[in-house]
Amino acid sequence: MVALRRLRLDIEYDGTNFAGWQVQPGCRTVQGELDRALGTVVRQPVRVVGSGRTDAGVHARGQVAHADLPEDAPSLARLRAGVQALVGPEIAVRDLAWAPDSFHARFSARSRTYRYRMTLRPRALDRALVWLVRHQVDVAAMARATPYLVGRYQATTWCAAHAADRHVYVGVTAARLWDEDDLVIFEIAADRFVTHMVRIIVGTLVDVGRQRRSPDSIAELIRAQDRRLAGPTAPACGLCLEHVDYGDTVQRFGPG
Amino acid sequence: MVALRRLRLDIEYDGTNFAGWQVQPGCRTVQGELDRALGTVVRQPVRVVGSGRTDAGVHARGQVAHADLPEDAPSLARLRAGVQALVGPEIAVRDLAWAPDSFHARFSARSRTYRYRMTLRPRALDRALVWLVRHQVDVAAMARATPYLVGRYQATTWCAAHAADRHVYVGVTAARLWDEDDLVIFEIAADRFVTHMVRIIVGTLVDVGRQRRSPDSIAELIRAQDRRLAGPTAPACGLCLEHVDYGDTVQRFGPG
Repeated sequence: MVALRRLRLDIEYDGTNFAGWQVQPGCRTVQGELDRALGTVVRQPVRVVGSGRTDAGVHARGQVAHADLPEDAPSLARLRAGVQALVGPEIAVRDLAWAPDSFHARFSARSRTYRYRMTLRPRALDRALVWLVRHQVDVAAMARATPYLVGRYQATTWCAAHAADRHVYVGVTAARLWDEDDLVIFEIAADRFVTHMVRIIVGTLVDVGRQRRSPDSIAELIRAQDRRLAGPTAPACGLCLEHVDYGDTVQRFGPG
Repeated sequence: MVALRRLRLDIEYDGTNFAGWQVQPGCRTVQGELDRALGTVVRQPVRVVGSGRTDAGVHARGQVAHADLPEDAPSLARLRAGVQALVGPEIAVRDLAWAPDSFHARFSARSRTYRYRMTLRPRALDRALVWLVRHQVDVAAMARATPYLVGRYQATTWCAAHAADRHVYVGVTAARLWDEDDLVIFEIAADRFVTHMVRIIVGTLVDVGRQRRSPDSIAELIRAQDRRLAGPTAPACGLCLEHVDYGDTVQRFGPG
C-alpha cells in the first residue's frame, strides 16, 4: 500500500458557468474539475474534499479543499502549474501546501465568511459578481437589521423549505452591511450555513430596505422558524465564499 | 429645422468583446452600440462623441460622451432605461444629464486618468480586467520609475511606431504604482495620450521590475524619442479608462 500525503488547496472561482461545487454526473462542477486536473497530474483517481458546497452560480474567493495524493506526487510548484493549466481560467489556484493528516477542509473549519454584493445601478465590469436590485432601498434600514442575525439558533427560517438541513443549528458570529463604491455589501460569518441561507437572508434584507418589513422584525422571523415568512431567495450571482477560518490565519471582517 | 439638446453620457464598459470605442464598419464597437441604442430611442440617427478612443479590449469605468438629441427627446429617465436595455450588459449607463451646448466630451476634457492592473498569480473573479505577469517583478523598483513619467514632452517613445500621433506632446500630471489586494496597479493622468501609450509604458515598467532596466533609465528613454528602445506593449485587457476630468468634479488619485 502506498502512503498518502494530504494537500491543502486554496481556490478562487467564478461560479457563473458551474453547476456548483459538488460533483454531479453530467454537470460541470468545481470539485469535478479539480478532481480531474489533480488526477491527471498524479496519474491516479483523486477526490477533493471542500470546506462546504457552494450552489450553482455562487463564487468563491477563499474556498479551501484537501486531497490525499500519493507519497511520490510531484512538487508543489509542479502540482500547481499542472492543476492551473488543466482547470482553465474560471478557477484560480491561490495556494497549495502540504497539510497534516489531521487537517480536514470541512471538519477542521471553525467558520466561513460569505459576502453578498448588491448594486442599485447597472454595472459592466463586475456584472457577473453582483445582483442588480431594481428597487429603491433604504440601506441604513438594512444595516440596522443585521445585528438581529447574530447568535446561535435553528435556522429553519433561512433554509430552503424542503432541505435536509432545515433543523440544523447555526452559530452566526458576525453580520454587517455597508455601502462601498456604489455597491451594497452584506457580510456574514458563521460556523455553518444551511441551504440557501445567505440568499434568503439577503432577500429578506431587501424587503427591509423596501420598507416592507422593519429592521427589528428579523428577531421574530428567526423565532418563527418558518421559511414562508422570510423574503425571496436572492440570486446566486451576488454571493461569494470569501474566507474559511481554521484558526490559523488573521481574519479581516467588515469594510476596508 | 429642429433645435437640438446636448446630452452627456457617463459610461462604463467591459471592452473584452468590443473592437474598441470607435465605430468601424463590420465591427462591434462601444460607440456603434451607443449610436444604435440612442438612435432607436429618439427615432433618428445619432452620433455619440467620446472623450477619446479606447483600443480593442480596453475597458472603461468613467468614459464620457456627448450626443445631440432632438428638442422633443424623451426624459432622462426614459432615455436611460431605453439605452440601457438596448446596449446589453457589457455597457452600463452610469449617468445621463443635459449639458450646455459648449460642453464637448473630447475638447472640454482637461485630463484623462487610466489604470493598468497587473497580477502575479492567476485570478478567477476579475480575470478579464487584469494582465497576468508571468515573471517575478520588483514592485518597489517599478514604483521608483514612475516619477520620471511626469512632465510635458513629445511622447514618441510611448507611441506605436507608425501612428499618426507619434510626435504629439503630452502633459503627464501624475503617475503612480502600488500593490493592492494581490494586484499591482499603475495609474496615470495626462491631458492627452498617444496610441498605446499606457500599454507601452507598462511593458517598460515590467522590464524595470524584471531588472532589465533601471528605474532612472526612464528619463533617458523619453528623451530618446524612439519607440524601439521601450518595452513591449502590454495587453489591452489590463487597461481601464477610469476618469475624465472636466474641471467640474473632485478627482481622487492614487490608492484608496
